[in-house]
Amino acid sequence: MNFLEERILKDGIVKPNNVLKVDSFLNHQMDISLMEQIGQEFHRRFADKTVTKVLTIEASGIGIACFVAKEFGVPMVFAKKSKSINIDNEVYVAEVESFTHKNKNNVIVSKKFLGEEDHVLLIDDFLANGCALQGLVGIAQSAGATVEGIGIVIEKGFQIGGQIIRNLGIPLESLAIIDAMDAETGTITFRAQ
Amino acid sequence: MNFLEERILKDGIVKPNNVLKVDSFLNHQMDISLMEQIGQEFHRRFADKTVTKVLTIEASGIGIACFVAKEFGVPMVFAKKSKSINIDNEVYVAEVESFTHKNKNNVIVSKKFLGEEDHVLLIDDFLANGCALQGLVGIAQSAGATVEGIGIVIEKGFQIGGQIIRNLGIPLESLAIIDAMDAETGTITFRAQ
Repeated sequence: MNFLEERILKDGIVKPNNVLKVDSFLNHQMDISLMEQIGQEFHRRFADKTVTKVLTIEASGIGIACFVAKEFGVPMVFAKKSKSINIDNEVYVAEVESFTHKNKNNVIVSKKFLGEEDHVLLIDDFLANGCALQGLVGIAQSAGATVEGIGIVIEKGFQIGGQIIRNLGIPLESLAIIDAMDAETGTITFRAQ
Repeated sequence: MNFLEERILKDGIVKPNNVLKVDSFLNHQMDISLMEQIGQEFHRRFADKTVTKVLTIEASGIGIACFVAKEFGVPMVFAKKSKSINIDNEVYVAEVESFTHKNKNNVIVSKKFLGEEDHVLLIDDFLANGCALQGLVGIAQSAGATVEGIGIVIEKGFQIGGQIIRNLGIPLESLAIIDAMDAETGTITFRAQ
């Protein structure tokens, strides 16, 4: 069991409907030492890749992506959620559906900050149905950038996202993959990696 | 002139209606070395304070607050924007009006992560009309926490927010205070500190 799986067992709370609350250390209150450790671990796992930019999506990906970008010594870019229907020609855009909030948002990245010379590492806190990640991959592809890999903190292995992303042929590293959760007993089953 | 003022002059772009674009290094693409430097500078300025938590608001405050929290060796908590009208009893809530987006949002912090034992340092990227910061101050006060200080990266000195916050008697440190901007000439006038 790795450091993240241990932390999930210690402080994660299983709620009904396959919801895992990790807001005490990952996506509301953030344990900065853990963020640094996550940054180092993704750097180790993608050590053979050339990375010029780390790309994530607001809001909870930002903290994690900062510490990954620090390890690679490159800038971090975060895609912004935009309610505007009038998207101008200065941005790349993708439509993303939120699993948590059951709504759709456009996410945008300025064309100034992503181009065909870039080799990007995509980072996010959760992978469930994969919509947010597919949006980020689409934005990187629109820019002509090379997606070197994807780093996920917690993958819900019983949802379709991981399969979809792996089928795209992009190297995907999830620090913890949850195959099952039980809200009644609080049990979490991790996939052996 | 300090490191941040120099960077604003180098890479900031003055737009009409007193808009300053710093999205190439601060709030869309983030220069991680600069974030670390900002973290160290706030730690230096608030070195005499006891700080148990750093509090900010999503999204663009998160990256900065992470590196401030790292210097103090404490957790970072970010207030979340919530569209929900049905706020439960588990969160502190404040209504915040956005200068940029001209709309109102509730921002919430879980009661689990802020209490009367906490001494908080509030961090944000911009201070203009002060609405977001007043919301954060209100949330800290609802929790019974002590606000030890406020660290702002860029204060628009020609707007009312800085005056409002200073009138509250809370120590406020802004790394750059802009007294005037001119979109036609691109001139930025900093307040001498």
